[in-house]
Parts: sequence; structure tokens; C-alpha cells
Amino acid sequence: MALFKQMTIIGVGLIGGSLARAAKKQGLVETIIGSGRDARHLQTALDLGVIDKFELDLAQSVKGSDIVILAVPMGAMLAVMQTIKNDLHADAILSDVGSAKQAVIGAAQQVFSHLPGGFIPGHPIAGTEQSGVEASFDSLYENRCVILTPLETSSELSKNKLSQLWQGVGANVVMMDAKHHDEVLAATSHVPHVLAFALVDTLGQMNEHAEIFRFAAGGFRDFTRIASSDTKMWRDICLENSEAVVQVLDRFNLELEKLRQAIAKKDSAYIETIFARAKTARDNHIIG
Amino acid sequence: MALFKQMTIIGVGLIGGSLARAAKKQGLVETIIGSGRDARHLQTALDLGVIDKFELDLAQSVKGSDIVILAVPMGAMLAVMQTIKNDLHADAILSDVGSAKQAVIGAAQQVFSHLPGGFIPGHPIAGTEQSGVEASFDSLYENRCVILTPLETSSELSKNKLSQLWQGVGANVVMMDAKHHDEVLAATSHVPHVLAFALVDTLGQMNEHAEIFRFAAGGFRDFTRIASSDTKMWRDICLENSEAVVQVLDRFNLELEKLRQAIAKKDSAYIETIFARAKTARDNHIIG
Repeated sequence: MALFKQMTIIGVGLIGGSLARAAKKQGLVETIIGSGRDARHLQTALDLGVIDKFELDLAQSVKGSDIVILAVPMGAMLAVMQTIKNDLHADAILSDVGSAKQAVIGAAQQVFSHLPGGFIPGHPIAGTEQSGVEASFDSLYENRCVILTPLETSSELSKNKLSQLWQGVGANVVMMDAKHHDEVLAATSHVPHVLAFALVDTLGQMNEHAEIFRFAAGGFRDFTRIASSDTKMWRDICLENSEAVVQVLDRFNLELEKLRQAIAKKDSAYIETIFARAKTARDNHIIG
Repeated sequence: MALFKQMTIIGVGLIGGSLARAAKKQGLVETIIGSGRDARHLQTALDLGVIDKFELDLAQSVKGSDIVILAVPMGAMLAVMQTIKNDLHADAILSDVGSAKQAVIGAAQQVFSHLPGGFIPGHPIAGTEQSGVEASFDSLYENRCVILTPLETSSELSKNKLSQLWQGVGANVVMMDAKHHDEVLAATSHVPHVLAFALVDTLGQMNEHAEIFRFAAGGFRDFTRIASSDTKMWRDICLENSEAVVQVLDRFNLELEKLRQAIAKKDSAYIETIFARAKTARDNHIIG
């Protein structure tokens, strides 16, 4: 018997589509319903065999589902919850894949007078530079971390079943507090994106920019790759995780200012200490 | 007839070794002498066929050479020039591969009462994460930019011959003012390294750092790859190009502070403007 009878995925792109493919491949779900605003897009998902059927009416799409995954942009979470809340089964699991967890919880608190026991925010730390259902594939979550941030209101049964889904598609499930998630992700993902966008724009605004970029080598290409990411998505993430992003930026700025002063006064020992400590941390913790 | 009778390369590592291999392959030089402090290292270069002979006495190594390339760390340039100056042939080309050009010129001005006509600082924008002669290869400079920063004292003949050497190994030679070079490289290379080191160290200093790095995904890996670079080399570059690095950092900080404020007060339009402008600049100018 499958883990779930019917799963609704609202927003069938790279993330939602890859979950659908993997869940189907592993026999974790009997029927997968895709939902969203764009019929052509959902037709493609159907044609690719990613979903079993699609439904443009979001409220209709969640009826009879024992699990609903919101894979829409952060900025759309509140409106989608509002639309589906009356048709969501009382025992259904409601989860999402958004990059900022306190914001999703805030949205749910606005929508539901009592948070359902099945509501468990989630965030798979996975993705590629691509987007859209055409880019989805069934091994996206293999050996990747999926963070779940259950609340006091979340039922044990729902936590277990949602964990089994993600583990079933190959992921390592980690539970943590939503606030902590937001700080960790601000540090490892959101702030790096802000810095990359800011650096490329700084250079772009320098007069001779066409010339400047001409002399960029491989290190610059790697460093700024994330500045070619989807700008609306990253704008939304910065807005939704504003507090933690600003906090990590401030911490970074303190460190950068000390380093700037050391460079200005040619404090060789200080510069080397910081560089060496950073290199050691990276070499110890990050592969490649 | 070869372009040069005898080339001395002081410092036969990735950069010097690759130049030697390529120059030999293209028949641009009759004899290549490797020089440096480490006999075992030079023996390896000889065994690999990268150089024709080696000489541990730096002064001795430049005798009879019509071109001398300094491929030593930035911090060693002054001492090496001091050691070789009396044995350098009056008409010899003297160039280098350092990442900061005003500092090399400053060192030369301290060493030589009159700068030789053959003195033309250079900087190949090429390299890999590797170092050492074992990592050298003859195609490193193919289609890469080599910046030369000739002075008023540089002779036309020397400029032409040095350009022919680099073009002969496949590089695109660009002439520019040393100050401009230093600003461009601060922007595209030195400051990105400072930011990557600073970010990784900021995260490393956060209590939960082992956990934080656990949730780093591919974007973080790319963004921080340059923080695994040789720390002494990058310390030296920051010291030698201190002024331009601080200048670009200040420009970057102004931009970052505006972005931070926009994120703090959730100014969606401003954030998107900057992100989109950066993405466009990167997508237009950088491939990959």
C-alpha cells in the first residue's frame, strides 16, 4: 500500500515536478494531482508523465488529498493557503518547499484560525540553475537535506508520514526550529546571493564595465554564478527572510570592515589569520 | 630562428612552468633556464622537460639571457630584482606575472636607478586551483588575456618582442596603464577573494558552524570556492594592491549598504532593480 492515496502539488516546476517524479517512481503515492495557474504548463507536466491529472481550480485540486505540497513562489503562499483552506481535508498534511520558514508560518497563522495538525513547513536544500517542469528529474533529492520545521500544533503522525515521503525519495530529513532554519539559510544561501548580486552590479556600474568583465577569470565566474539566478525569486526570499538576512549581513559587515582596515593599513598578520581560518573552515566542511 | 636565444624563468611553478612548456612547444625560445630557491623543485621541472637546465644562483641564472621572467610571489619581487640587477643584460627584457602592477613598478624603481628599457610588467589572467610545476601545461594561456603595463621608459622593441612571446603561446595581449590594471583586477579578482574569505570566516565563527556548512548547497560551494585558494598568495596580493582593493571594497560597501537598507525596510522594487541589473550584466558579459 502506498504511503499516500492522493498528493496535490500546487506549482509543478523543478522542485514540485521532481518530487512528483520521485514519489511516483518509489510508489509512495497512488495519484498525483498537479495544480497551478497555467494550463499549458500543467499539460506539459501531464504529457511528461510527471502528474496523473491536473486541476486549474486550486480549491478543487486539494479535495480528497491526504497530502498537499505548496511549491509556489514565497510571495504566493498566503494567497494559495487562503484559496484552499476550506477544501483542505482536516487530517491532510500541508507542507511547502519555501526558502524562508517563519514567513510561511506567518502566512498560515493569518489564514487559519487554528493551525491544522498536518501543517509542517519544509525546505528541500536542492535545486539546479534550471527551472520549470521540463528540468525536473526523479533523483533531485537523493542524498540532499530536507529541513522540516514542525510546530507545537503539528501531529506526530503527520511528521512521521512527511518524513517518510522525503526519506522515500532519498533525502536526509532534519528537523529544526523555523527561526534557526531561517538564520542558517540566510548564512549559507540568501546572503551569498545578495553579495553576488551586489558585487556584479557594483562592477556593472563602474564606467569601464564592459572592459572590466573582459578580464574576469574562472574564479569570478564561479563566485558570481548565483547572480544569474531568478531575480524575482531571490527578491521574494530577501523580503520573506528579511530579518535573518539583515542579521547575517550585519555580522558579515563587521568582519569585512575589520578586514578592510587591515588591508588599508597593511596588517599582514591579521589578513593571513582570517584568510587561513576561512580556508581551513571551507576545506574541512565543503567538498569541491 | 627563435624569438629568444635564452629565457630565464625565476620561479618555475604553474605559471612559470606553463609559459616554459608553451614557449618551447612553439619554438619561441632556444634555451630555457629555470631558477629559484628549491633544488628538488627545479630538478622536477628538469625531469619533466619543462626547462633545459637550472641554476640556484639567481644572479648567475640571468647571465646571457635576452629575456627574464619573474614568476615568484609578489612579496619576493623586490629581493629578486635586487639580486639579479647587476647581472641582467642591458638589453634584456625583464617582465613578471604578478597580480599587482604598481607594486612591481615600485619595487623596480627602488632597485634600478634608471629603469631598463626592457622592463615591462605583465600579468597573465590565467591559472587553476592547482599550483606547482607538476600542474603546469602548455595550453594554459590559449585564448587567455595577458595584460602588459609598459612604462614610458619601455622600449618599443621590447614591447613588441614580449607581445610576440605571449601571442605565440596563444594569449590575447592587452596593454594598459598599471594603475588601471590594478583597479580592474581589484574589481574582478582581488575583492571577490576578500569577500569569499570574509563570508566563510563569518560563518565559521558562528557557533553552530559545523551545522551551518552542512546545509550549504551547490551555490555556496561555487561562491566560496576561491576561499580555498593559497592564503599567503592572496594576503600578498591584498598587501601589494591595498589601495585599489580598499577603493573597490568601499564602492561595494556603499552598494551593499543600500541593498541592506532596502531588505530591512522591504523595498521590493529597489531589490529587484539591483538584482535584475546584476543578472543582466552577468548574463551579457560572463559565460557559464
